[in-house]
Amino acid sequence: MDVTHDPATLSWVESANDPATDFSIQNLPFGRFRRNALEPWQIGVAIGDQVLDLHAVGLIDHLDMQRLMAAPVTERRALRLSLWEGLRAGSALQKVWSQALLRQSEVEMGLPCEVGDYTDFYTGIHHATTVGKLFRPDNPLLPNYKWVPIGYHGRASSIGASGQQFHRPQGQTLKPGAAVPDFGPSARIDYELEIGAWVAGGNGLGEPVAMAQAEDYIFGLTLLNDWSARDVQAWEYQPLGPFLAKNFATTVSPWMVTLDALAPFRADFERPAHDPQPMAYLDSAHNRAAGALDVQLEVWLQTPAMLAAGNPGQRLSTSNMRDAYWTLAQLLTHHTVNGCNLRSGDILGTGTLSGPAPEQGGSLLELTQGGKMPLTLANGETRTFLQDGDTVILRGYCTRAGVRRIGFGECRGTLLAAR
Amino acid sequence: MDVTHDPATLSWVESANDPATDFSIQNLPFGRFRRNALEPWQIGVAIGDQVLDLHAVGLIDHLDMQRLMAAPVTERRALRLSLWEGLRAGSALQKVWSQALLRQSEVEMGLPCEVGDYTDFYTGIHHATTVGKLFRPDNPLLPNYKWVPIGYHGRASSIGASGQQFHRPQGQTLKPGAAVPDFGPSARIDYELEIGAWVAGGNGLGEPVAMAQAEDYIFGLTLLNDWSARDVQAWEYQPLGPFLAKNFATTVSPWMVTLDALAPFRADFERPAHDPQPMAYLDSAHNRAAGALDVQLEVWLQTPAMLAAGNPGQRLSTSNMRDAYWTLAQLLTHHTVNGCNLRSGDILGTGTLSGPAPEQGGSLLELTQGGKMPLTLANGETRTFLQDGDTVILRGYCTRAGVRRIGFGECRGTLLAAR
Repeated sequence: MDVTHDPATLSWVESANDPATDFSIQNLPFGRFRRNALEPWQIGVAIGDQVLDLHAVGLIDHLDMQRLMAAPVTERRALRLSLWEGLRAGSALQKVWSQALLRQSEVEMGLPCEVGDYTDFYTGIHHATTVGKLFRPDNPLLPNYKWVPIGYHGRASSIGASGQQFHRPQGQTLKPGAAVPDFGPSARIDYELEIGAWVAGGNGLGEPVAMAQAEDYIFGLTLLNDWSARDVQAWEYQPLGPFLAKNFATTVSPWMVTLDALAPFRADFERPAHDPQPMAYLDSAHNRAAGALDVQLEVWLQTPAMLAAGNPGQRLSTSNMRDAYWTLAQLLTHHTVNGCNLRSGDILGTGTLSGPAPEQGGSLLELTQGGKMPLTLANGETRTFLQDGDTVILRGYCTRAGVRRIGFGECRGTLLAAR
Repeated sequence: MDVTHDPATLSWVESANDPATDFSIQNLPFGRFRRNALEPWQIGVAIGDQVLDLHAVGLIDHLDMQRLMAAPVTERRALRLSLWEGLRAGSALQKVWSQALLRQSEVEMGLPCEVGDYTDFYTGIHHATTVGKLFRPDNPLLPNYKWVPIGYHGRASSIGASGQQFHRPQGQTLKPGAAVPDFGPSARIDYELEIGAWVAGGNGLGEPVAMAQAEDYIFGLTLLNDWSARDVQAWEYQPLGPFLAKNFATTVSPWMVTLDALAPFRADFERPAHDPQPMAYLDSAHNRAAGALDVQLEVWLQTPAMLAAGNPGQRLSTSNMRDAYWTLAQLLTHHTVNGCNLRSGDILGTGTLSGPAPEQGGSLLELTQGGKMPLTLANGETRTFLQDGDTVILRGYCTRAGVRRIGFGECRGTLLAAR
């Protein structure tokens, strides 16, 4: 915690002082924007409803986000301090920097960086338990779950920025009781509410990252929607895990919220007394005291009927990143303990972050009990899984009395009809 | 088949005319070399024991292998023809091109290109059956196997070129009968004999590639060793598949052998009468007539004792790419049928290519029945899994009477002691 976290600081960018903004001067998340499709991606920082062009103000001399992410954590903190200095009310830089501001509504936001490898974890124990019951009623939570931060590799090429639209995928599915699979459009398209952690720097092959250093290797966090075709997943996933059920699209929010910005929202990480404690390589005093993050999460659905009626959507669920069974440091350390090398621009998904209550499920699979209990929406529509034209919006934010709000913006994606 | 396949053609590069060479003028595989670590990677073509520098002879005006791979298949064929014209005995270009030759023994070979996404399939039905028996004695081959080309995403960052050395990974394992896992160096490090197919060009998100076009999206093939930690795998792989058991290292041979070079070694693809036929999206007359490839495969082991004795190693097994249950076109079409986008530089592994006989297993897991039956080597040593200092060498080649040999070179990797 340093001067950049002082809740009393206001910005000369007026919209950043709105108590409801996601992008107060205490936040300062990084992303890539462009004015039009002919322009290369530029590096920007969100402040209120504006974007500050980092190259234009001379804080960087290149346009390569990976390079910025690879800087040592001390340099990254120095950059944050420079941004705070320039953007705070009364800054001598106001006159010059105000020339480098663009309205967020007038730029396109892209992926925050070129994506390297994508790993998805499974840290939502409530999700794992509920889904496990559907796939394996007698054995919902497998014996390894409380020991191993379960993860698998995902598809990097199909990760898109908020606003992504994709067609309902085709695939093989096995109807209940059938002996022979069918081929056609998936009938069970779902979302998954996750946080994605973008890797900063990286480790050499064969060089594990210890818990004490793990957080230095995380640049920032975004919201992540791990779209899933449940019927394809059920038929294909044994024995090597999900493949075509997941790799047709994954959507992330455009702004990387740094761990520095989230410092006031750290929380202790505690295991229930009857659960095994983390093995030594996944344990540290800092992790126990402050390894978790108190990020409030929401899923919203906007159906085509809502869109037509000017309805911005309906909230389907709320949960919290604290519901994760493993911390980000544990995920990163576990990932590298065998010598696997991470690189700037890799992304680690948390897995679906569902809360403990049934209505806190971070996917329709959970909220509808595998499609058996349709949701009735406020406008009278019903849903088991997503229908063509449905838009799913993820939101995330941190609030606490006496501290300025830090938000993630939104992660929005739309399912189009099968081709 | 065209003039480049004429077995009567000889090269003015004498070593390319040796009947035992992998790199006859009928082959012409692509790779990246450098004279020293200060030089950027250059694009080269193997010919006999030499490398032809493509930039030096003016056939390309850049050093970007991905860009070369992204060229339309007609352009790639035209380049192959130009190479054949310049390298054949009697070519007017001999004098100029001989200035652009380097001895393979004097250059370092790197990864053939920057790696995009890495997907690993599971097409070796004999491997899947044998391994399935070890993990699930009552249910070796799951019901989806003969319908779905099973695949999963692998780790791109830890793929290295032949010569890769890596430390024995640490990880969690569960001893037989134990209730609580251990942490330490894996005791069951294994290799897997595979072929990797490098993607050329690519498809847009949401745009599946049909069987008729699928082969145009494959630039060439390499050998691939999917190193595996079996004890880590057994404990971690449920329910999302292998993760740390595989992502500590994957080794590929440096030369991409084009599908054009392999044209004389195409084979019919036939399903046993009692097996389901491929679904319509995975079927084509061309695939049935010529979708398979007759590539002979070998695994060699060189222990530290062999190395000390000047022994180049012992052959552990032989098999053939025809032992795969799915063709490359089927893998690529299946991968994209849901709209997943592929890009130049992506690599698709076949999965372990074991033959039908027990001694044809493409991994030690198979050859030693899960470590229960040690192999006795010719020098008296025994192995269940790999020991520190062991080098595994994969080889692949095509031979047939009246046709020139086409080889893959070798894929070599060494297991070092745990750190």
